[in-house]
Amino acid sequence: MRQETLAACRKRISSYVHNTPVLSSRLINELIGAEMFFKCENFQRAGAYKMRGATNAILQLPDGQRAKGVVTHSSGNFAQAVALAAKSLGVKAHIVMPTSAPEVKKVGVKQYEGIIYECQPTLAARQAMADKIAEETGATFLHPSNDINVIIGQGTAAMELLEDQPDLHAIFCPVGGGGLIAGSALAAHFLGRDCKVYGGEPFEADDAYRSLQSGKIEGNETVNTIADGLRTTLGDKNFPIIKEHVTEIFRVTEDEIVAAMRLVWERMKIIIEPSSAVTLAALIRNKKSFRNRRVGVIISGGNVDLNNLPF
Amino acid sequence: MRQETLAACRKRISSYVHNTPVLSSRLINELIGAEMFFKCENFQRAGAYKMRGATNAILQLPDGQRAKGVVTHSSGNFAQAVALAAKSLGVKAHIVMPTSAPEVKKVGVKQYEGIIYECQPTLAARQAMADKIAEETGATFLHPSNDINVIIGQGTAAMELLEDQPDLHAIFCPVGGGGLIAGSALAAHFLGRDCKVYGGEPFEADDAYRSLQSGKIEGNETVNTIADGLRTTLGDKNFPIIKEHVTEIFRVTEDEIVAAMRLVWERMKIIIEPSSAVTLAALIRNKKSFRNRRVGVIISGGNVDLNNLPF
Repeated sequence: MRQETLAACRKRISSYVHNTPVLSSRLINELIGAEMFFKCENFQRAGAYKMRGATNAILQLPDGQRAKGVVTHSSGNFAQAVALAAKSLGVKAHIVMPTSAPEVKKVGVKQYEGIIYECQPTLAARQAMADKIAEETGATFLHPSNDINVIIGQGTAAMELLEDQPDLHAIFCPVGGGGLIAGSALAAHFLGRDCKVYGGEPFEADDAYRSLQSGKIEGNETVNTIADGLRTTLGDKNFPIIKEHVTEIFRVTEDEIVAAMRLVWERMKIIIEPSSAVTLAALIRNKKSFRNRRVGVIISGGNVDLNNLPF
Repeated sequence: MRQETLAACRKRISSYVHNTPVLSSRLINELIGAEMFFKCENFQRAGAYKMRGATNAILQLPDGQRAKGVVTHSSGNFAQAVALAAKSLGVKAHIVMPTSAPEVKKVGVKQYEGIIYECQPTLAARQAMADKIAEETGATFLHPSNDINVIIGQGTAAMELLEDQPDLHAIFCPVGGGGLIAGSALAAHFLGRDCKVYGGEPFEADDAYRSLQSGKIEGNETVNTIADGLRTTLGDKNFPIIKEHVTEIFRVTEDEIVAAMRLVWERMKIIIEPSSAVTLAALIRNKKSFRNRRVGVIISGGNVDLNNLPF
């Protein structure tokens, strides 16, 4: 893995994804006592950074393989991203979604012409159905987070953020399956000037925090968190990157997630999903450690169900 | 009134207000069949374009008069704007707010150290209380929309939009008291290349539409609209400008306002208030007339009460 790999990925996907804006808020700067830069992937196509990794992974497939389509399982944002990326590239997308996935995300997949298959809301059920579809159709399985092409694609968000703000002391990412934070850690490693990477994770699904403690990939017994994008666990492709390049993972409560989400909605006037509020919640909780620092935050997505808000 | 007046105002207020971003949405472009440019005054300081006019009006006061403070009445956004502008300039702000004003707007005024006076929710009661405060304290009354310095200040949003997109065929503004559309019409007149200005107004408070029909300022018997910023009526300073420079005012239903607001929240991932959704609703309703045109929209503000959403 070299710096050039990231640069080549960015060039490859550039006509399919937005270089999203970086926003700031005077009030939130004052609240945290740091200079904050929010990379707004909620404005990304399909409403989340996942579009980056999905596009890169499909573009890396040989033509013959592309013709047979792709298949993935996802509770939401990666599903929409694969559907839209596949549509843009003229590729068929089979999407396995748990019955518990938010309605707004299913609507998104349908709109991008993805073929939806519903399954029970367990990782095992999701994987089994995706494997079956891959076998029957010859479609290539794309993992939402444990795939090096996906990881590198997700890293382009932090890459753009560092281009905009080269002197960041830290970048914060939410941690779900680990694709975003692994990609961001690679970008910070290759392109930052001693820029450290931190994760935010709900106490209710703190598998990554525990994995860093124990040194091996841990699971979650329950995932009672509003941050629906962060209920998954790390994988063998992204965990080594996270172990090597991520400084620390901070955990937050459900109340802190909702309060941070509300703060961004009310003060920055942008819609972020609960999974994206976890990072700001982590910063508010640990603000003493980041006093007067320049801190980037990847706002991972903005796909919320307006019929089911926590306030 | 000359082009230089606008340019001087912009320079005067530039260190107190944001040059807000201009956003676009592929999906909304496709929906309307036009190329749309949204000037995001919801990202303005205090959450609305009103900061521009308030700052300009206070900066135009002689020092002796500034020392006695300012007073205004407003259901919300102008109140917050005057409070913040006054605070930035070290001036005392007396703010008369109707008891019906959204709680979030009262909280904003308090946070910016404005002194709140509550009154009955009628224009007569608001004006009477403001007049009394002006008499007792010597504070200068600032009208939210019928003041030439306020109007010119509000026009700087359209001015910046035209700098970003010089070839706009049209600019859409919501119409409440008439300050924003009058200022935008002056900006389009002086700086546009045959750029027409259109207004959006709720059927439930269509005084400006009827005023343009009758040629004189009309009132509203009732104002049963969710667009709480658009319940006021035109004034003798802005109506002549509107009559001369505004091409047409389109009316929309309450359902159309809520649907347009939801569309922007879900698709653009930005928070806009109901008053700001009126313009997009008007465009959706009249899209045939704007086919393939380049259309600017002033997103006037993003101050909503998250405890009281219409969806």
